[in-house]
Amino acid sequence: MTREELFKQITQKQSYLCVGLDTDIEKIPLHLRNMEDPVFEFNKQIIDATVDMCVAYKPNTAFYEAMGPKGWESLQKTLAYIPANIFKIADAKRGDIGNTSGLYARAFFEQMQADAITVAPYMGADSVEPFLTFENKWVILLALTSNPGSKDFQLKELGTKQLLFEQVITTSATWAGADRLMYVVGATQADQFIKIRALAREHFLLVPGVGAQGGDLQALSQKGMNKQCGLLVNASRSVIYASTQKDFAKQAANEARKIQQEMALCLEKYL
Amino acid sequence: MTREELFKQITQKQSYLCVGLDTDIEKIPLHLRNMEDPVFEFNKQIIDATVDMCVAYKPNTAFYEAMGPKGWESLQKTLAYIPANIFKIADAKRGDIGNTSGLYARAFFEQMQADAITVAPYMGADSVEPFLTFENKWVILLALTSNPGSKDFQLKELGTKQLLFEQVITTSATWAGADRLMYVVGATQADQFIKIRALAREHFLLVPGVGAQGGDLQALSQKGMNKQCGLLVNASRSVIYASTQKDFAKQAANEARKIQQEMALCLEKYL
Repeated sequence: MTREELFKQITQKQSYLCVGLDTDIEKIPLHLRNMEDPVFEFNKQIIDATVDMCVAYKPNTAFYEAMGPKGWESLQKTLAYIPANIFKIADAKRGDIGNTSGLYARAFFEQMQADAITVAPYMGADSVEPFLTFENKWVILLALTSNPGSKDFQLKELGTKQLLFEQVITTSATWAGADRLMYVVGATQADQFIKIRALAREHFLLVPGVGAQGGDLQALSQKGMNKQCGLLVNASRSVIYASTQKDFAKQAANEARKIQQEMALCLEKYL
Repeated sequence: MTREELFKQITQKQSYLCVGLDTDIEKIPLHLRNMEDPVFEFNKQIIDATVDMCVAYKPNTAFYEAMGPKGWESLQKTLAYIPANIFKIADAKRGDIGNTSGLYARAFFEQMQADAITVAPYMGADSVEPFLTFENKWVILLALTSNPGSKDFQLKELGTKQLLFEQVITTSATWAGADRLMYVVGATQADQFIKIRALAREHFLLVPGVGAQGGDLQALSQKGMNKQCGLLVNASRSVIYASTQKDFAKQAANEARKIQQEMALCLEKYL
């Protein structure tokens, strides 16, 4: 998917919501658990219920890997089920030496048909570049994450006075432009968006941390939005586990709609 | 596996070789490719041929993921086939927010029965700690990798004058001791071993970069060995692809034996 196509979806749906399909077999409603593929069945119903309110889905691969080869199949079926006009993010946080990253790229872009993959920057240029060679596919590079551990390394100051995550943005901007590269930026630190926008004016930012992880949609939208919105804001548990009963899909739709309506207001105010 | 058990294997076999099972379906001998699970069949024969010369196997998960759910099954079967007295490393380079890293830990330590998993440090303490809660299981944290991109971030100097990878070692040493934690240290930079040993005297170091990636076994052993050897040196392509013919397993054994014999000399000289 191109940046223009993504922006078009955002304006049409008045939404920059990404729904995180972090589907845990132990948390899905009981009545689904005896089905042949409960995880896919759950995802399918969540997608059907929320597809009009979001522009992206983001399954975190850990939830699928924890179920072995069968989970890998559920992931593949889920990505195949998502309509083509929706942005599909494999939240895999991969990254390895060059030829090995190339295999991960094949796994997620070709086998899984994802539009984007999250990548960890620690191993540098040649670990990221193989993901950047696929046309209309995206790398979403970890910059500033929303977990407590982000302070251990990401927020450390370098000899250059830049923080490590700022250096990650500055350096990676020489590898690809805003048509191939996005950044993960945690919403628990809304003030950081001003500094980040000075370094990455054009890029889309994937923002976890709305919903179960905390965060403030208004504040981050005001500080982080650019001319093409430039934000994908993720909500996972608050949407997909809105109810654990038979009405789970309906309640997920309600939660997604609440966020979408707030996003419509933000787009009106800040775009 | 405990550190004592690993050291016992090293002294018994006079080897600290780890064989990297980076099995690429396109590189395995033609006569195996029509079998039901060619990747597992290849690995099985490599393991049978090399098991007396090495103390660890390290499949890189990228090679298996690139084949979809079937590859995941080959990986599971491979890990199950490796004898219990051999150290099994899932080279997965995972790392995510706390509860998600917990799922990866379950995937690799419980589903896959690995003894150790490689983890990327970028997301900090809570992304690594869930892997450290499993008894006799190990985290092998990326510190200094052997690829060109290691210079982009790992070798950057912090405000404290430590390089980033040194900070990773110093900080992570507060999360767990040398009975739970090892480090990945690239062999292309043998001089770095002296500095690393000052920061991590007791820890085992997993050293990629012997064989196809370059490196000098004597130099790194002299500089990196500690009282319990403290080194696992990995060779992948130079061993498993020593021949592409029907004699591939025999040639792999020959290559592994050459390395093992050099390691026996190093153990005599430097332990």
